[in-house]
Amino acid sequence: MAKAAPWPLDAWYVACTPDEIADRPLGRRICGKAMVFHRGKDDRPVALEDFCPHRGAPLSLGFVRDGELVCGYHGLTMGCEGRATAMPGQRVAAFPAIRAFPVLERYGFIWVWPGDPAQADPAKLHPLFWADSPDWAYGGGLYHIACDYRLMVDNLMDLTHETYVHATSIGQKEIDEAPVTTRLEGEEVVTSRFMEGIHAPPFWRMALRGAGLPENALVDRWQICRFSLPSHVMIEVGVALAGHGGYHAPADKKVSSVVVDFITPETETSHHYFWGMARSFAVGDAALTDTIREGQGKIFSEDLEMLERQQKNLLAYPDRKLLKLNIDAGGVRSRMAIDKAIAAETALAAQAK
Amino acid sequence: MAKAAPWPLDAWYVACTPDEIADRPLGRRICGKAMVFHRGKDDRPVALEDFCPHRGAPLSLGFVRDGELVCGYHGLTMGCEGRATAMPGQRVAAFPAIRAFPVLERYGFIWVWPGDPAQADPAKLHPLFWADSPDWAYGGGLYHIACDYRLMVDNLMDLTHETYVHATSIGQKEIDEAPVTTRLEGEEVVTSRFMEGIHAPPFWRMALRGAGLPENALVDRWQICRFSLPSHVMIEVGVALAGHGGYHAPADKKVSSVVVDFITPETETSHHYFWGMARSFAVGDAALTDTIREGQGKIFSEDLEMLERQQKNLLAYPDRKLLKLNIDAGGVRSRMAIDKAIAAETALAAQAK
Amino acid sequence: MAKAAPWPLDAWYVACTPDEIADRPLGRRICGKAMVFHRGKDDRPVALEDFCPHRGAPLSLGFVRDGELVCGYHGLTMGCEGRATAMPGQRVAAFPAIRAFPVLERYGFIWVWPGDPAQADPAKLHPLFWADSPDWAYGGGLYHIACDYRLMVDNLMDLTHETYVHATSIGQKEIDEAPVTTRLEGEEVVTSRFMEGIHAPPFWRMALRGAGLPENALVDRWQICRFSLPSHVMIEVGVALAGHGGYHAPADKKVSSVVVDFITPETETSHHYFWGMARSFAVGDAALTDTIREGQGKIFSEDLEMLERQQKNLLAYPDRKLLKLNIDAGGVRSRMAIDKAIAAETALAAQAK
Repeated sequence: MAKAAPWPLDAWYVACTPDEIADRPLGRRICGKAMVFHRGKDDRPVALEDFCPHRGAPLSLGFVRDGELVCGYHGLTMGCEGRATAMPGQRVAAFPAIRAFPVLERYGFIWVWPGDPAQADPAKLHPLFWADSPDWAYGGGLYHIACDYRLMVDNLMDLTHETYVHATSIGQKEIDEAPVTTRLEGEEVVTSRFMEGIHAPPFWRMALRGAGLPENALVDRWQICRFSLPSHVMIEVGVALAGHGGYHAPADKKVSSVVVDFITPETETSHHYFWGMARSFAVGDAALTDTIREGQGKIFSEDLEMLERQQKNLLAYPDRKLLKLNIDAGGVRSRMAIDKAIAAETALAAQAK
Repeated sequence: MAKAAPWPLDAWYVACTPDEIADRPLGRRICGKAMVFHRGKDDRPVALEDFCPHRGAPLSLGFVRDGELVCGYHGLTMGCEGRATAMPGQRVAAFPAIRAFPVLERYGFIWVWPGDPAQADPAKLHPLFWADSPDWAYGGGLYHIACDYRLMVDNLMDLTHETYVHATSIGQKEIDEAPVTTRLEGEEVVTSRFMEGIHAPPFWRMALRGAGLPENALVDRWQICRFSLPSHVMIEVGVALAGHGGYHAPADKKVSSVVVDFITPETETSHHYFWGMARSFAVGDAALTDTIREGQGKIFSEDLEMLERQQKNLLAYPDRKLLKLNIDAGGVRSRMAIDKAIAAETALAAQAK
Repeated sequence: MAKAAPWPLDAWYVACTPDEIADRPLGRRICGKAMVFHRGKDDRPVALEDFCPHRGAPLSLGFVRDGELVCGYHGLTMGCEGRATAMPGQRVAAFPAIRAFPVLERYGFIWVWPGDPAQADPAKLHPLFWADSPDWAYGGGLYHIACDYRLMVDNLMDLTHETYVHATSIGQKEIDEAPVTTRLEGEEVVTSRFMEGIHAPPFWRMALRGAGLPENALVDRWQICRFSLPSHVMIEVGVALAGHGGYHAPADKKVSSVVVDFITPETETSHHYFWGMARSFAVGDAALTDTIREGQGKIFSEDLEMLERQQKNLLAYPDRKLLKLNIDAGGVRSRMAIDKAIAAETALAAQAK
């Protein structure tokens, strides 16, 4: 039996953002599968195998005509269900079909379901309460990172690394010193850390200033990391003026946001990292959105070299067991949830035979 | 038994153009074999293995002295038959020989025979009627392309792709709509397509203008692709003012040329593509030769990404069978001719044992 | 049984120069082992595996605090013996250790012993008489070369190549014409060549000029290449005014130097090449040191393409036996010494089981 892929297939993954398919088709490998994305007849997003059944050309090198992909090599027109609909001078009825993947557009993202289409229930999409609310603003970006997507999950479910990797922006010694708690909340793995009566690090000083609060005041700071399947990590972060209830402080005494991380596997050693920040302060300030995006992009780029070099080291020492400390509990539990989901899919597939 | 290489070996391939060996030796891998080319004592081109028998250095990093290659590492002098002729302080008589490959210079190209030297008959060279004629002018170039050379044969034996890949120069909708005919003429595979009473695409408008003909007139257009072993594709192309006999129209009513394609395998997934155009109009106009070369170079570069990405897709899906439509008949028949030639060589080799 | 690595492990190799660890840790692969170098508490150099036992991050991406490496990912502090000494919020006593390699600092280099620490006797370090002497000056550099380190040994133990590879600087026809002698001196392989009554090549003209001697005079020239384990090649080179005793001429009639080559394997097909020149003339002239370093760097860079292309050719023709001529005797004997050292280590390891 073939070794199962190291990711759940029956799940909604972020595939791309709408701007990426605004002008032309987009080719992107997701969970090991070469896909092409475009907008179909009704403007709804479509995901197909990026492989023309005629001569194997990538359909993503073609163009969209009347909502259908036209192969850029010999003009085969591919319907949105993966069956050729036309080709100059040819009858296409007997042409072999290619796979169409279930797709959704929601919350400002295009989502794809790489697994069994019969299981692709839109209700299984992870809800994002902030995405449809006028009280929240969002900005983000995309990085391609050459490491196993689970190393990114580990990274985000243990923010101790901020002290070291992001020393000049969001890191501070107190993160190390505060104990971390990991628990399950329904199907979510939640790792949280609270710091009281500390000085805010540079990023949060900027946020306090932006919200009209005193940037040099002592604050209470929180980080609540929430992992949900298949590989989303939402992190509630913020600071409140000290002594006003911290996380539960009234809105005018705190600045807070949600760090948004959608981690989409590409291959076993690479992934697409959709990062961003949703905030509930100064939501009408588009310039602030840009400033935050730029700052966050810079901070998150600091993780890249570390993660890619970690990946290389792990490939070089495949037999070496890594430590699972209390600070690693978030990543460890998240991986358990991933493994459980994969095992359930494998069992379901075996049953179906 | 080792798997046969996917190309005939007993054949003349274009190795390089004379300017490539004018100043220094040229190292080039052809049909999987690392070769070095230079001009020998009598100025005749020579092809040898690019491997110094002393310490394995590439002879192509050396220089030519009195028509013999001198290794750039320790000064071994290699004779044009592949036997060392001298080395400082050494007796070279017992040195192992390296392979010398039969070579010809003709029609403005250096040709090499990678297979059995006993079969290397100059009479087997593909005749190029236009190359020695004062009534024709030629200009061309060379691209290195990371795909199986047969994907380029397919590409050239089905010009339907012009409509899509070369939409802004030689492509036009009518190509798609005209039926294509494929037949054998002796040992040549011939695919042809005729369009009548159409508007000329931009490239041919330029040619009509250059020949003093009305560029906006309706024309008859033809494309006659001729494949011959091992992997040459000569394409007769042209337009005539409509109603004057098309391909057979008198010379003052048409502009025509031969697209010249020599496709020399490098490895199983790469080749050297010698492209050019021979024309019988305005043959004395060197500036036009340059203009055409530049235009053709740009057009042919549009095939590169498509072919290289097609190659990657085919490697990723090795078990997927591609379609063989009527428009593909030219490529399919050409591959049959290639396979037949390879089988004949294999049989001959088995017989010789 | 695993195939033995193609290098001795129980030996002192040059790992780096002090300036490379002045400001930050240095990651470098040596004899196939990923190592990180830094200065410890007492300022003594330390070599550890470049692998954090927590999550496999490379320690070389971290920083040094009070002489201990701090992992740049989650702050594990690694002691100089390879045992974690601290980590925020963790007890580290049970953490698995990483390897610490014996290190020495001497003669202006950091040396590492990749093999059995019990054998790592400082007395086994190759003595460099010129390094601690006020009568000598030294300048050098480092190249990374993508070839088996033994191809560099071959290169340096046969200077015939100077005539071809370094034709414009130190090469001259007379090198080819002078016979070469190879002998063992204790554990050193010594290859020497003497030329009498010749014109000096450009490099030595510069040196004569620098020493106040007539650059156009006839000279006697010598090259004495000394290989010692594991892979050091010291080459005594110089010219004396003709008829004054050559190598043995009085100091005011000659210019001479030692070409210094430490060849440290990285992988089976790459190495770190520490090159330099020690000279006993104009030792106080720092500008001359720079001029020589620049000139030597340029000359030695001429070997790179040849060696890397030779490596590729040898990988492409693994079954082809290379010649072992008299000029190759230096390299051949050096490789015999290397093989003997590896065999002795293998025998010792078998005995220890």
